[in-house]
Amino acid sequence: MSYAGKKRKLDKTRQDRVYFDSYSDVTVHEEMIADYVRTNTYRTAILKNSELIRGKVVLDVGAGTGVLSIFCAQAGAKKVYAVEACSIAEQAVEIVKQNNVEDVVEVIRGTVETVELPEKVEVIVSEWMGYALLHESMLNSVLYARDRWLKAGGLILPSRAELYITPISDPVVEDRLYFWYTVKEQYGVDMSCMSNFARRCIKNSDIIVSNVAMEDVLSHPARFAELDLHSVTVEELRTVKGRFTCESFGSAAVNAFCVYFTVTFPCPEKPHSLVLSTSPFYPETHWKQAVLYLDSPVEVVQDTPFSGEVSMFPSEDSSRHICIHVDYTIGEQKEQSKTFSIPDWTAEPQP
Amino acid sequence: MSYAGKKRKLDKTRQDRVYFDSYSDVTVHEEMIADYVRTNTYRTAILKNSELIRGKVVLDVGAGTGVLSIFCAQAGAKKVYAVEACSIAEQAVEIVKQNNVEDVVEVIRGTVETVELPEKVEVIVSEWMGYALLHESMLNSVLYARDRWLKAGGLILPSRAELYITPISDPVVEDRLYFWYTVKEQYGVDMSCMSNFARRCIKNSDIIVSNVAMEDVLSHPARFAELDLHSVTVEELRTVKGRFTCESFGSAAVNAFCVYFTVTFPCPEKPHSLVLSTSPFYPETHWKQAVLYLDSPVEVVQDTPFSGEVSMFPSEDSSRHICIHVDYTIGEQKEQSKTFSIPDWTAEPQP
Repeated sequence: MSYAGKKRKLDKTRQDRVYFDSYSDVTVHEEMIADYVRTNTYRTAILKNSELIRGKVVLDVGAGTGVLSIFCAQAGAKKVYAVEACSIAEQAVEIVKQNNVEDVVEVIRGTVETVELPEKVEVIVSEWMGYALLHESMLNSVLYARDRWLKAGGLILPSRAELYITPISDPVVEDRLYFWYTVKEQYGVDMSCMSNFARRCIKNSDIIVSNVAMEDVLSHPARFAELDLHSVTVEELRTVKGRFTCESFGSAAVNAFCVYFTVTFPCPEKPHSLVLSTSPFYPETHWKQAVLYLDSPVEVVQDTPFSGEVSMFPSEDSSRHICIHVDYTIGEQKEQSKTFSIPDWTAEPQP
Repeated sequence: MSYAGKKRKLDKTRQDRVYFDSYSDVTVHEEMIADYVRTNTYRTAILKNSELIRGKVVLDVGAGTGVLSIFCAQAGAKKVYAVEACSIAEQAVEIVKQNNVEDVVEVIRGTVETVELPEKVEVIVSEWMGYALLHESMLNSVLYARDRWLKAGGLILPSRAELYITPISDPVVEDRLYFWYTVKEQYGVDMSCMSNFARRCIKNSDIIVSNVAMEDVLSHPARFAELDLHSVTVEELRTVKGRFTCESFGSAAVNAFCVYFTVTFPCPEKPHSLVLSTSPFYPETHWKQAVLYLDSPVEVVQDTPFSGEVSMFPSEDSSRHICIHVDYTIGEQKEQSKTFSIPDWTAEPQP
């Protein structure tokens, strides 16, 4: 049988089909637009800030299909520069026309680092976040745009990003290890020794992007980093790190940490901010959560303390790929460390 | 936001997790062993043929974890050579020991084209089938093994493969195109013009591997090719083709063809054969079906005839990648043609 082809997933539901099928450009945009938490929070944030946008010049960094630019036009922007490097810019031009905002929204094909705008802007809007916030993110481009094109005192939407970590107990991975013990009953062949091999394969140093179920979360999440988009520098992004402490809700076997992010929009109305959260306690988004498996599960009881430090930095192999290093102490255990990275999904699987 | 990373799917259920996570070798083997239709049909076929296997020498081509080799040992084989080129051979050695059949099953690390066996064999068993039967399949290796190592009159399990085609009406793809008409109601931005772009992206020439729902199948499937593993040659595999005719069950919009395969094992007991089917009318397997989208849907009524010819041949870019060319006539329409190929999942997505 053929290994390589079988490692990839194709299925029939929208959620599944939305990835993958032939890497068609449309798929990723469909997924983003269909992510209601994402698109609606941006829409709400832009419309709630219409006092600050009306009559102003806006730059949309990485505009994609141009939907955020059109929200800004609807909020009364005088001009929106929708900068997009990919060929989806051609669709953005059509969508802008279809919504009769071509006098306001100007789609510019190119990277924000290379395009020349005719003027400085009062507002920057961008949906730049990647998995675990920083994986293949466009944040550096947003900061470039800020330093190059944003007038002093200008608005950045979103204006803040925060990173959280929490211990979890993921039953799926333990089920997968247990699967090999069930083979004998099913087929009469004892394959239980595969469980060790499976443990080595599954509990490796890859960052797994998946939806963590709320009931698998073992403590209140701890914020370990905050980025103020008005002030953070490209240099500071080279390592984003911070300490965390939290305590177990109850007795469980901790087998992973979960890392996720929120971004915050200023909002003139109370409560004066609007949060786009990718927390496992909130509705699912296409970002899901980043799961970091420990080498072996650790039994904890109620109030067992967790503490440590998380560092996020670009991979040496590819600056757009993120690594997450965690130093952690669970209860009375001595400190342990593990470094995780997002697997290179485009690499040829090993035979 | 980051496109590349978001094109890949990672999810939490077993079915999903079983692909992907870090290309760990265990994942693909877990998926194959957990595919009950696959593993149990092989097991049943081997045990039902125990009269022909008992006391005989067997070659397992591409043995993987060695499960088929152990079935053969359980069926009374005198000796089983489990030839496996990948590192999973190391696990096969352990599993063989764990099942106390190391005197019978000898795991040999290498390709069947290069290993030297100490003797000829009376039986070849192999699970060589890929998507759409021939995508990245090991059939050429099985034929090599047959010609080099199988004694005259020997047994091959399975001994026959058949390919089928049927027209289908896939609602998911039409839903996806319609999605763009729903955006205005949801977010106040008209994105309906994306539907054309989506159509071009989705209805391209990729072979999509997905589970076709029984109710989406529009006719009795038509067999268009049959391979007798005792006689087929590598030369004949360079193009596998055949004509088909079938008739619509009822009124529908045909938007794709579905191609799938069966393999057949001889069986001394009635009904004298045992079929492993990947038909949409049978329980799901990890092979799913191969879906070939037409450029536009065609309305048909009950008994509308379909006819044409299917050719399957290796891609010019990669001989292990399969192409499917379909010449087809639907009802009174003039003949049309379309060539499909499995997308290169390892290629870097286009920005």
